[in-house]
Parts: sequence; structure tokens; C-alpha cells
Amino acid sequence: MSLTVVGSVAFDALETPFGKRDKILGGAATHFSISAGFFTDVRAVGIVGNDFGDDDWAVFERHNVNVDDVEVVEDGKTFFWRGRYEYDMNVAHTLDTQLNVFETFNPKLSDESKNTDLLFLANIVPMIQKGVREQSNAKFVAMDTMNFWIDSMKDAVIETMKVVDCIIINDAEARQLADEPNVHKAAKKLMKIGDLKAVVIKRGEYGSALYTENSYFAIPAFPLESVFDPTGAGDTFAGGFMGYLASQGEITEETMRRAMVFGTVMSSFNVEEFGTERVDRLTHEEINQRFANFKRFTHFEEIPFEQATSA
Amino acid sequence: MSLTVVGSVAFDALETPFGKRDKILGGAATHFSISAGFFTDVRAVGIVGNDFGDDDWAVFERHNVNVDDVEVVEDGKTFFWRGRYEYDMNVAHTLDTQLNVFETFNPKLSDESKNTDLLFLANIVPMIQKGVREQSNAKFVAMDTMNFWIDSMKDAVIETMKVVDCIIINDAEARQLADEPNVHKAAKKLMKIGDLKAVVIKRGEYGSALYTENSYFAIPAFPLESVFDPTGAGDTFAGGFMGYLASQGEITEETMRRAMVFGTVMSSFNVEEFGTERVDRLTHEEINQRFANFKRFTHFEEIPFEQATSA
Repeated sequence: MSLTVVGSVAFDALETPFGKRDKILGGAATHFSISAGFFTDVRAVGIVGNDFGDDDWAVFERHNVNVDDVEVVEDGKTFFWRGRYEYDMNVAHTLDTQLNVFETFNPKLSDESKNTDLLFLANIVPMIQKGVREQSNAKFVAMDTMNFWIDSMKDAVIETMKVVDCIIINDAEARQLADEPNVHKAAKKLMKIGDLKAVVIKRGEYGSALYTENSYFAIPAFPLESVFDPTGAGDTFAGGFMGYLASQGEITEETMRRAMVFGTVMSSFNVEEFGTERVDRLTHEEINQRFANFKRFTHFEEIPFEQATSA
Repeated sequence: MSLTVVGSVAFDALETPFGKRDKILGGAATHFSISAGFFTDVRAVGIVGNDFGDDDWAVFERHNVNVDDVEVVEDGKTFFWRGRYEYDMNVAHTLDTQLNVFETFNPKLSDESKNTDLLFLANIVPMIQKGVREQSNAKFVAMDTMNFWIDSMKDAVIETMKVVDCIIINDAEARQLADEPNVHKAAKKLMKIGDLKAVVIKRGEYGSALYTENSYFAIPAFPLESVFDPTGAGDTFAGGFMGYLASQGEITEETMRRAMVFGTVMSSFNVEEFGTERVDRLTHEEINQRFANFKRFTHFEEIPFEQATSA
């Protein structure tokens, strides 16, 4: 099945306790699409400025990402974000945000993008996500969002949620959006409010969970002894999840469960180096190796307890 | 295999947002032993005062717990703890602690307790844990500890760790004890320092992980939409873990993995009601049912990703 992502393409400047980068390729649609590109052909819909260079386009090309619908604004500059992480990598400190051409981003989908089978609405203004969804004939649409939109325009987030099939967010966002402290109740509440087929909750180093109408699935994170740069981990997860689903031809409980594991695997690579650096040179062999390891790390035999019978 | 636990037997007074109890049976050895009692015969070693009543002893009797080595101090009172939980149940607020007879607890093991196959040293002064371990001929010894001892006598905790086989602690304790922020590195460091066969890290609502010399195993928590009273959850987990191991006749990677799941299942019941109330009336059928559900919640097929071949 075909897969399209709509979202930001950006340059990031990053500082972590382990090093820094001045200007590297980033953005939600970037991380999503190069992750998904390991599983299927992807179309990216976005906007960049005249500072977007051959090396940047080459990253997309290497990973089966069609960029025909990435608009280039000749007299504009690409979205730029500068951030810093302390040793506690759960919190990104934003040092500078220059929206640049992204400020006017309001995509009109091409016919090819409209006719995608699967669509991912990366984190952008909820009304724009909704507008994109309404232009599209996609059979399965997933969305991300963030605390900023839930704080400032929760109703719009909920309206958007009502026109998609799946939401992929982190646990704090789920609790905030559902106004419910228990994450399981929050997920069920979101599923009801949005009439969703699936809710995916990402819990960072603690793993992730998938809620569907009749089932629940939870997995730990891949065990990492160091996290170098968490930027893009969530979008890389979503890219693995949606990319794998697109590759399988059907969206069932079984394929969604494996998609969760492939999402976990992809994001575990993403955080090992800056930006897209690690995923950019990843191989299918490495992905399947880590998938197999993940199975080993989580497997147990289903043997119920039997009481010893007295002689 | 036989199983013995050494630790506190207490009365608890509890307040949670959902209700209160003035004086109910509690203590680490209590929660551990009645949980383990579903899987094997257990001996409890502890100390109580003259206020310990027939109803209290009856709880142990109902659950295959031998209390011959629970000393009764005729002119003393039982350890008493009063605590309160807010909606965030991860933090217990201690309102009152009366050690009473527990202050003089320094167990001399009976021959029966000495010859136990498995021994669990519940959370008490580390030197006392070490003394008990040295009196015992147990083949597999596990210990708990807490931040209070790590703060005040870390060296003693480490000395005790060196004479046991397994440590069962929560993630904050593991990081503090190893002086290492990454939980996976912390677990490996503890294994090395203590020359341990296994490290079990409990992460509350996020699940738990088992580290052995050659393997890693992680599971999510059982999904609970409400936690009524978390008191004793950790000891109930440890009781399920050690009790199941004792019932299986051998301690292998496979039995330890299932023991982690049974520990998870037992603690998920424990938190549903006050104190020991839920576990006290639990059945083997309910335990196996939840074990089967847990398998369903975590299972995925190991099918590697295969690229579509071009026609």
C-alpha cells in the first residue's frame, strides 16, 4: 500500500552532553519518511527554502522517499530549530525557533498524494492536519500532536482526531488530551471521543502500548545503555509503524503488533546518533537482527501454574 | 523446593483518595508470604507483639504459610506504620512509624528455616539481612532493600549484596545503589559488584526487567485502570517470583521469566484493594487467567521484514 506523510522538513541545531551539530537535516516528515522508507515507498509533503541543498535531497532519495510534493520557496528559508538536551533527555530545551517558510505551510495535495492508501499527519497545526485529511482518499490515517496544541487549541485537536483512524502520541499528551490521569483510561477515552480504530501510546524508555477496539498490546522499549540524541525518535517510531503496515497489505491486529515492534526498533537506532545519521546508513539486516533480539528479550512460554498433587 | 522469608510483619493504617483502614495486616514478610503461598509452602520469620490476633494468624494459615518462626513478644506491640497516598500513588507519605518489637528483631533461624532451599530477605537493616543469609544453607537467596539504607549505609547494602544471588529492587533504588543514571547500566553494574546471578528491576506501572549473565527480559505491567492501594505491591511481586521458582524445582532462564510474569500478576491483584484483602481471597484460576491474559497482551509473531521483490 502507498504511504504519504505531511509535516515539517527542517534544519536542526542540536546540543547534547555528548556533542553538538550546527545545522543538520531534521523535521518530523524527514524522520518519519526515511524510517518508513525501509519498508515501503513513501511520499513526503512539506515545504523548504532555497537553503535546502543537494545533500539534503539525497537523504530522501536514498530512502525511497518521493519529494515531488515538497514545495521549494525560492526566496525563503527552511524551518530552523535549535535545541539542547541535558543528561535527562526526556526534556528538549528550545533555544530558537525560526518557522520561516513553514509559517505559510498549507498543503494542497497532488493527485498522487490524495490517492495514498495510508496517510500520516505529523505534528502541525491541527486545522491544517484536518484540511489535509479532508483532501485525501486514504483508507487509514494516523496523526500526531503535541502539548502546545492541546494547551492552546484542544477543541481543534479533538475535531481532527474525529476524522482520522489512529492517534500516535506520548503518554503525557494522551493524559492531557483525555483529561484523565490513568493512561489506560485515557487511551480508551480518546478512542471513544475520536471514534478511532487504534491508539498508540509512546512511553519513551518505558516502551509503548497499542489499544484497539477489542485488544491491548504492550511492549517494553529496546534496552539502550546510552541515548545520544532523542530528536525525531517519535517520528521515527511512527515511520516504522506506518511503513511496516503499508508493506503488509492489510491492517490487522497482527500486523499492527509487529508494526509496534518495528517502530520500537527504528526509534532505538535513531537515538544512537545525531539527527538522521544512524538511520541513514541502517540496513535491513540490522533491523531484522534487532527485531529478533527484541523477540528474545520479551518471550516467555505460556505454561499456567499447576498445583502439585498430594501423593 | 522450600521457601523462607525474613522480614516485617506489621499493622498498617492507610489513607488513599479512595478510602481508609485504621489497622490492617501488613508488612513485607506478610505480603511476600501470602503471595508465595499460592505456589509453594512458605516459612515466615518475623516478630510480632501481643496485639497480634487470631484473625491475623488465620491469614497466614489460609495461605500455606508456616509461622513457627514468627516470634511473639508477650509484653510488646507489633510494628505499626501509618501512611497516606495522594492520587499519584508512586509516593507513600509516612505519617507515623512505631517500630515496637521490630526494633529488637535479630532473627536466629530454626533448623527448618536454615535448611530452606530458597530464601528471601525482605527490606530490613542490611546487616541483619547479611546475618540471616550467613545462618542459612539456602541455594538461592534474593534480597530487597530501600533508599533509606542506600542513603545511610550503602556499604552495608553492598556487602549484603555480595552474599546473595539475586536482588529485587525498583529502578530508582538500582540507579542510586549503582550510582548510574541509566537503568540498564545500573543493573549490569550491580550484577558485577554483587557477583549476582540475577537482578530484577521493578518499574511500577511501567513493568519490570530481569537481567541475568547472558540474557535480558522485560515485560510491561499488567494494565490497571485504577490502583486502589499500592502498599505491599513490591513484596507481593517478589512473593510471586520466588514462590513460582520454588514450585518449579529448578531456577533457569525459562522459569525465572515465567516467575517475573507471575510476580507481575500477583502484584496487579494486590493493588486492587487495601492491604492483603484482594490476595487473601484470590484463586489459582484467577491467577492463571490473568497470566493467560498477560500472554495475550504481549504476544507478537516473530516474522522478519522481507522486502518485496520487483517483478
